[in-house]
Amino acid sequence: MAEPDIEVLTTQLLKGDRRAAAKLITIVENDPDAVKRVISRIYKNTGKAQIVGITGPPGSGKSTLINQLASYLRQKGRTVGIIAVDASSPFGGGAFLGDRIRMKDITTDKGIFIRSMATRGCKGGIARATGDAIKILDALGYDIILVETAGAGEAEVDIMNASHTTIVITVPGLGDDIQANKAGMMEIADLFVVNKADREGADIVVYEIESMFRFTDKRGWKPPVLKTAVIEAIGISELAERIDEHFNYLKENDLIGERLKRRVEMEIANIAKEVMVRELEEIRKSEAYKKLIEEIIEKKTDPHSAADEIMMMVKARYIEK
Amino acid sequence: MAEPDIEVLTTQLLKGDRRAAAKLITIVENDPDAVKRVISRIYKNTGKAQIVGITGPPGSGKSTLINQLASYLRQKGRTVGIIAVDASSPFGGGAFLGDRIRMKDITTDKGIFIRSMATRGCKGGIARATGDAIKILDALGYDIILVETAGAGEAEVDIMNASHTTIVITVPGLGDDIQANKAGMMEIADLFVVNKADREGADIVVYEIESMFRFTDKRGWKPPVLKTAVIEAIGISELAERIDEHFNYLKENDLIGERLKRRVEMEIANIAKEVMVRELEEIRKSEAYKKLIEEIIEKKTDPHSAADEIMMMVKARYIEK
Repeated sequence: MAEPDIEVLTTQLLKGDRRAAAKLITIVENDPDAVKRVISRIYKNTGKAQIVGITGPPGSGKSTLINQLASYLRQKGRTVGIIAVDASSPFGGGAFLGDRIRMKDITTDKGIFIRSMATRGCKGGIARATGDAIKILDALGYDIILVETAGAGEAEVDIMNASHTTIVITVPGLGDDIQANKAGMMEIADLFVVNKADREGADIVVYEIESMFRFTDKRGWKPPVLKTAVIEAIGISELAERIDEHFNYLKENDLIGERLKRRVEMEIANIAKEVMVRELEEIRKSEAYKKLIEEIIEKKTDPHSAADEIMMMVKARYIEK
Repeated sequence: MAEPDIEVLTTQLLKGDRRAAAKLITIVENDPDAVKRVISRIYKNTGKAQIVGITGPPGSGKSTLINQLASYLRQKGRTVGIIAVDASSPFGGGAFLGDRIRMKDITTDKGIFIRSMATRGCKGGIARATGDAIKILDALGYDIILVETAGAGEAEVDIMNASHTTIVITVPGLGDDIQANKAGMMEIADLFVVNKADREGADIVVYEIESMFRFTDKRGWKPPVLKTAVIEAIGISELAERIDEHFNYLKENDLIGERLKRRVEMEIANIAKEVMVRELEEIRKSEAYKKLIEEIIEKKTDPHSAADEIMMMVKARYIEK
C-alpha cells in the first residue's frame, strides 16, 4: 500500500470528503508519528461542531438511543457524526443482528458518518485518538458529533470531558455493583437518561438521581433526568431539545471557552504522556537499558536511581532530534 | 513535625525495627522526592523474602484467608508481612466488626506486620508505592510477604507481577460479569483457590478453571486449583504447602531471576512514568504553559505541536538540575 498523502487527504477532508475522513481517522489511530501532521493541518477548521458524549453500561440501550437520536437529528436537517469507543457496541462490531437491522436505515444516509474506534491495538491512548477523530469530523463540517463510550475508566472520563454535553444513561434493575461503578460518571453528567422507563423501578431511579442534586448549592445548570423507551422512540425529541438547551446554556454563560480549555489541558497532558511512553519503549530496546536492568538485579543500583538515568536517556534522545 | 531522618530510619529498619518500617512506608507513599533516598539505602538488603500476591473479588473471603494463612505461617515459626492494597479490605480500614475481631489474635503478635496502602491520595502510582513497601518489609527481614489486592486494573496486575506466587481466589455463585472481569488475572495466576467450597457449584468452578489449562501445551507449572472454606480454616495447610511448592519450583528451575527481571522492568517503567507526570504537573504551573493553552484556544497552534513544546520544557528542566 502506498504511503497515504496527508496533505492531499486533509485538503479533501476540508472540502467535505467522507472517505478522506475515514482514512485520516485510521491514520490517527495507528500512526502516532503522523498524527501531528494531520491535526496541525486541520486544527484551524475545528471548533464548529457540537460534541455530545453518551455513556452507560452494556444493556442500557445506549446504541439504540444513539441510533434514534441520529435519525431524529437528520430529520431536522443536521449532519451527524457517530464515534463509538465501546468494544461491545453494535457500531463497534459487537452487534446483535437485530441492532444491525435497525441501524440499516441510517447507514445509507450521506449525512451520517459512523465510526468505531479500535479499542485494542490502538497505538497511543484511546482518549487521545478519539479526541483526534472528533477533530477530523469537526473539520469535515458535520453539525453534531455523538461519542459513545461504556465503562467509567480514566479514558472514558477523558473522552466525556471532551464533550460539550455529557449524557449518562441508566436503566432500572441493574445491580448495586454496576450502579456504584458509574460514580465517576455521575460527577461529569450534564443530562441523565433513565431508559426502559416502562420497567418497574424507573421512577425510583429518577428519584435517586434527582436526590443527588437536590441539596447541591450549585447555581446554574442542574442536570435534568429524562425518561425514555428508546426502542419505541419515546423521549427522543425531548432528549434532542435538552441537548441543545444545555449547549445554549454553555454559550449564553460564556462556558464554551471553559469547556474547550478543560479539553485542551487534558489533551496535551495525554499527548505528552503518550510521547513519553513511546520514548520509553524505544529506550527499552537499547543496550544501555539492558545493562541497567542487569545492574539492578546484581544490586549495583536500585530501580529509582535507574529510573533517573532513564529519564536522562529520554532527554538526551530528544535533544539529538 | 520534624523532618524524618531517612538515614536514621533505614539504619533502624535494617536492625529489625518495625516502627521504622511503618514510618518509611508512610514516606514512600507520600513523599516522592524522598523515595529514592529510602530505597537506594536498603536495596542491597532486599531479595530474601518470599512474596505472595493474593487477589479476588470482594466477598470472596480474601482477607479471612490471609488472616488464617498468616496464623498458620506464624505457627510454623515464620515472620509474616501483610500489605493490603484493597480499599474494601478489613486491613484497609473498611472492616466489618466480625472481621476485626477475628483479626485480633494476629495483631498483637510481633512476628506479624500489617499495613494497608492508601489507595487514595497516594502521591505517585499505587503499584510503585506497594513495590517499595514490599522492599521495606523485605529489608526488615520478614520471611514471607502477603500482598492483597482486589479488582483487575493495570495497577493490580503490576502488583501481582511483583510476586513470586500469585493466588487468585474465587467463590461459587458470582455473576458472569464479575467472572469475566477476572480474565486479566487468570493469565497471571500460579495458584487458584475456590473458597466457600461447601457451597453449591464449587466443583463446577474447579472444573471450569481446570479446563482452561487442560489443553495448554505449557510445560512446567500447571496452576493447581485448591478448595478452601477459610472461615473453618479448611484447606489452609494445603494452601501453604502449595505456595512453598511453587516457590521451590521457581528456585529449582532458575526462574526466580526471571521473575525479578519482570518486576524490575515494570518498576522502572512505572517510576519513569511517575517522574514524567510530576514534571508535567510542575510545568502546568508555569506562565509558558498557560500561554501555550491560550495559543491553542486561539488556534495559533494545535495540541500536538504544543505537546512537543512541553516535552522540550520537561527536558530543559531536567538539564538545569
